[in-house]
Order: sequence, then C-alpha cells, then structure tokens
Amino acid sequence: MARIAILGAGVMGAALAYPLADNGHDIHLIGTHLDDTIITSCRESGVHPRHQRVLPPRVRPFYLSELQAALQGADVIALGVNSRGVRWAGQTLAPHLERGQPVIMVTKGLAASEHGDLQIFPAVFAAELPADLRASIPVAAIGGPSIAGELAARRETCVVFTAQDTATLDKLAPLFATSYYHIWTSTDMIGVEVCVALKNIYALGIGFVAGMLEAAGGLDGNAAMHNYAAALFAQGLVETAQMVQLLGGGIETVFSLPGAGDLYVTCQGGRNSRMGRLLGLGVKPDSANQELAGETVEGVDAVATIAPAVNTLISRGVLKPDAFPLMRQIYCVAVEGQSAESIVERFFRPEFLNLQPVHALGR
Amino acid sequence: MARIAILGAGVMGAALAYPLADNGHDIHLIGTHLDDTIITSCRESGVHPRHQRVLPPRVRPFYLSELQAALQGADVIALGVNSRGVRWAGQTLAPHLERGQPVIMVTKGLAASEHGDLQIFPAVFAAELPADLRASIPVAAIGGPSIAGELAARRETCVVFTAQDTATLDKLAPLFATSYYHIWTSTDMIGVEVCVALKNIYALGIGFVAGMLEAAGGLDGNAAMHNYAAALFAQGLVETAQMVQLLGGGIETVFSLPGAGDLYVTCQGGRNSRMGRLLGLGVKPDSANQELAGETVEGVDAVATIAPAVNTLISRGVLKPDAFPLMRQIYCVAVEGQSAESIVERFFRPEFLNLQPVHALGR
Repeated sequence: MARIAILGAGVMGAALAYPLADNGHDIHLIGTHLDDTIITSCRESGVHPRHQRVLPPRVRPFYLSELQAALQGADVIALGVNSRGVRWAGQTLAPHLERGQPVIMVTKGLAASEHGDLQIFPAVFAAELPADLRASIPVAAIGGPSIAGELAARRETCVVFTAQDTATLDKLAPLFATSYYHIWTSTDMIGVEVCVALKNIYALGIGFVAGMLEAAGGLDGNAAMHNYAAALFAQGLVETAQMVQLLGGGIETVFSLPGAGDLYVTCQGGRNSRMGRLLGLGVKPDSANQELAGETVEGVDAVATIAPAVNTLISRGVLKPDAFPLMRQIYCVAVEGQSAESIVERFFRPEFLNLQPVHALGR
Repeated sequence: MARIAILGAGVMGAALAYPLADNGHDIHLIGTHLDDTIITSCRESGVHPRHQRVLPPRVRPFYLSELQAALQGADVIALGVNSRGVRWAGQTLAPHLERGQPVIMVTKGLAASEHGDLQIFPAVFAAELPADLRASIPVAAIGGPSIAGELAARRETCVVFTAQDTATLDKLAPLFATSYYHIWTSTDMIGVEVCVALKNIYALGIGFVAGMLEAAGGLDGNAAMHNYAAALFAQGLVETAQMVQLLGGGIETVFSLPGAGDLYVTCQGGRNSRMGRLLGLGVKPDSANQELAGETVEGVDAVATIAPAVNTLISRGVLKPDAFPLMRQIYCVAVEGQSAESIVERFFRPEFLNLQPVHALGR
C-alpha cells in the first residue's frame, strides 16, 4: 500500500481519494489557501462540503500550513489545483519534492507565452522546479471524461493517464485503478492535454445554444436547437484536432476519451454550460460571472488565454487568418461581450480538407 | 428554379421540402406504400401529420401510385425511404430515371454481403439500376447532424453533402442551401456514409446508460452516469474511425459533422435513445420493440446487419478477434437480449494505438 498526497482539496482533488482509498492507500488531502473552509469541514464532520459526501476513513485532511508534514513519505503527489494555480503549485512543492517522486495532475488548460506559443500544464509545472530536480520528477496527467461528483459516487468512469514514459504510467495507474475507475494509459501527453484544455472552451460555446433557445422563445413544436449545438460540437472537435496537430500531439486522441469523451461529458452540465447559457441569453460576461457567484469558469479562463495566442500566431504567419474560427468567436462572446447570435455565420467557413461550405442563395 | 421529387414522405423526406421551398423550387413529395395516410393528410389539411406542421405551398403531395407523373420533369430526386427500402427504391425508380438525373439520399445504413463485406447505401441503390443507366446517374447523400423536426422548423442546421465528384455537389448544394440550412460538401462518401450509419448503433448503446441509471435507483446525490455515457460515446467514435479506415474513408470525417456531430445529436433523443433506455432497464428486445409501437429503430437494424458482418470478417482474419468490442456488445444486448449491465467490462480493452488499459487491482 502506498501513501498519496493530494494538493488541492476541491471537487476533483477530493474525488481521487475514493478509488485510492478503496485500494487501501493512505491519503493526505491538502487544501490550498483557497480550501481552508473545506479542510475545516472535512476535519470536523468527515464530510467534504462540496461533494456532500463522507470521505473514506483513510483520508487525512491537512491545511496548507501543514504542507511539510503532509508530504512526508508520499509515494506520489496528485495535483488538484485550478488552472490559475499551476505555477504556484510548482513553486510551493519544489522545496519538498524528492528525486523520482511522481506528480500527477488533473488541472486542465494551456499556458501562452507573449509570442503566442502554447505549452501544456505538466511542462508549466515542471518549469517551476529547480533544473537539477526537474529531470528526476516524472510529471503525469489525467484526462477525462470524469465528472468529479460521479467518481466520488463510485460511478463507472474511464480515463486516460498520460506521461512521457511508460514506466511512470506502469507505476501510477495500478495505484488508482478500481472496478469502477478504469484507466487507459497514453504517452501522447500533448494530445491528451490539448484535448482536455480545449473541451472547456467548446463546452462553453455549445452552452450558448441553450440560452439562444430560451431567447428565441423555447421549443417550436418539438423542435429544440440540437442541430445547432451538434454543429458547434463537431466544429469544436475539428478545431481541437487542429490544435493537437499544431502542437505535435496524436490525432487519435481527439476521437477517444480525452477528446470526444471529455467534450461530451462537459456539455452535460457544470459551470461552463451554465455560463454559456447566460451568455447565449445575452447576459454580459461581468453580469454572468456575478450570477455564478464569481466561481472560476475554466472555459472562460482558457479562451481568455488561448484565443489571443491564436491571434498572435496568425499575425506571425504560423496560422492562417481564418484558423480556429469558433474559438475566436467564443472569445468575442465570453470575453468581449459580443452577441452570441451571429456565431453560426462567422464560423461556417471552409475549415477542413475537402469540406467546403456552400453559401445560401439570396432569398 | 428547379423541380425536386422527394420519394419517401416520412419526417426526413418531408423536412427537406422546407429549405427547397424557401429557395423557390417546386417540390413533389411522393409517399412510399408506407406513407399513404401521410399523403392523405397532406392533401386534405396541408399539414404533415408527423411534423404537425403546415407544408409550404410549393409542396405537392403524391401517392406512390402517381409515381410516373410525380417524377416528370424532376431536376433532382431526393430519397427519404428508410434503411429497409434502399433496394426497393432503386428498383422502383430505375424505369423512370433519365441519364444525368442526380439522386440524393438521406437514408442511413450499410449493407452486408454473406462474406461480411460492407457497402454504403449509395452503392446499394446504384446496383439496382441497369448497368447502362448506372454510370450516368450521380448518386449523392446527406450526412447530419440534422434532426428532421428542427430542419422543418427552420432551425440552424449544418450538414455535409457527399458525392464522388464535385460537379454533382456544385449542382446539388446550392439548390438546398438557405440561411438556416448550411451545407458543406465532401467527396469522402465512404467516410460520411459509415459515420452516419454507425452513429445510430452507438446512440442506441449510449442510451443503455439512461436505463441503467434508473435501474440503479437514479441519482446518487448529484451523481448521474454521464462519465459512463461519455466513455461509450468516445469508444463509439473510436470504432467509427476504425470502420471508416477499414472501408477506405477519410479519418477527418469522423471528428467533423457526420461523425462527432451526428452522434452527438442522435444522443439527444429519438427512437434509438428510447430503445436504448428500455434495454438498459433490462427490458428484452421484443418487449422493448412493442413499447415503441413496433416503429423501426435504425440502430437496431444497423447493428443486426453490421455486427454479424464484423464477426464474419473476424473469422476470415480480415479483423482482429477483439475488433469492435462495443458494437458487438450492443448486438448482444439489442438483438440477443443479454443484459446491458456488464457492457463496460467487456469493451474496456486495448483498442487504440498507444492507449492501454490497466486492470483493477483485486479488492
């Protein structure tokens, strides 16, 4: 049996504790500075307040101030911070990491340089470690589809663990795999990380359609707007494939669990969908964010980072002027506050190989 | 302005009349022998009984007995028969077709020979035409995502028209394209036709999860079974990609509209999902079919044809023994009446390049 330290006690970090505990491991669940009330609740009642579910007895909750003790003897460190906390996590863990100690991340997103170059989060995390330590810390990541609340309820969940070397994967995956937590492994880190980052953006955009349907008066007979949402879903996956190719990942990852699967599950609810609905209704981003009580919406954060990088890559000539039309349109709506209404007209353009659009005849 | 004859007056055939009428064409909507009551209703009230929507004034309904008159002067023939009617349609139209007269199909499925060789429907249709006529009739097809009721409501809909030559596509697409019916064109007929045929099968399988959730007592806290459904969605798309490659289609079609988009929209409701739910609840196929009032479920028809062909291809050594595990499992449930419960255990196997599963530890 192993000891696993999880840094970040939000819903996803805490959810990992369930399969790990079921495998008999000791789990140290460490809150970040954002998680103090969560840790207090876990200590006082044994209930994780956001899951509203009892933590397994093998889980010991720790405040961030107890980090050093909490990390002691950890065979693996799992990282459940949000997308704004990746660099912080690298800086915070650096003094404590031991050579060969693997880190596995569930945080999703891409970072952009001022030149528009995009980087996957495991690389961003590793860059914060001292150079001599960096090469000896294997950094892995988990790609969905995995709604945290379902994992904590021990519902069937199938994910991909990804790392650069199979030895790391062979060590990590058996620690987590249970009869309900099914794990494939993949060395296509770029493919997995790009897919899981972009799905938040496209789920946000697909969410617009729910708001647009309401704004249009709802159902017309039995007719919803599923065709529209499905077209955005497909275009999102096409653009995901293009980004995977741009960064050098494997295209087969796009139509497996981290691509199609994670985009599908992210469209089934959650903050991206709720934010998308509000934007589709015509609510401005600031007001929409207030309605969501200021909670982080990963899709908004991701598009606010990645779409400007795409524009920079276009201006550098790395990408064509019409690249990523849906992502850039989602940016206009979710960040700049433009109307979602005309989104279809702007993104239905020639995009992919031999698929060519036919313009409507004048009427 | 053109004259378009539509053979098959069900929901999809009739839906095509809306964009065509909005473009000012004359439309002859011809019922098959299954559609007599539909045609009677259309003639008497002007309302299509299954859409519960008034047909545009430019649509003239015809009984099958009036076929010859209805086809006269048609610039294009659209084919809206169901998957069991493709050969019949070829035989029925053959005496009336004129050289160069294009046929465009919305029927979805694959046909199988006794040796397990699979054929797309445009080829099945063409094979019923006399050899001298065959080469001069361009056969095109339409791939979704397109719920018929939404197209008839003039909701935004994005589809792919596919044919072997761009000249046919350049002729057909502008006739149909409107401000709400967006058309891309593709010469990847095999890719498009395989995707739209298989999506009915996988939507049926994804539908199992709704029934399994009910059988398990519904939500556990907030936890549904979206992770499970998403894993089946991803596996369905992976297997679709494998079938597209087997038959020589283009992989990029899988993560665009006809693949990911059409599978997504088909999971939003309809007969495949309803049938899937019943099977997931443990209802046997015969009883489930009765509950659906004996209506054709395209996913059941498709898997009943294609899964045995896959087994034949495996026994011939064309495919590996573990090929298409999810499709074959859906066959066991939807045709043989096995329980849907263990589906996840049977299909979570190494399937794709460097994705390798990790088996759960004993508990």
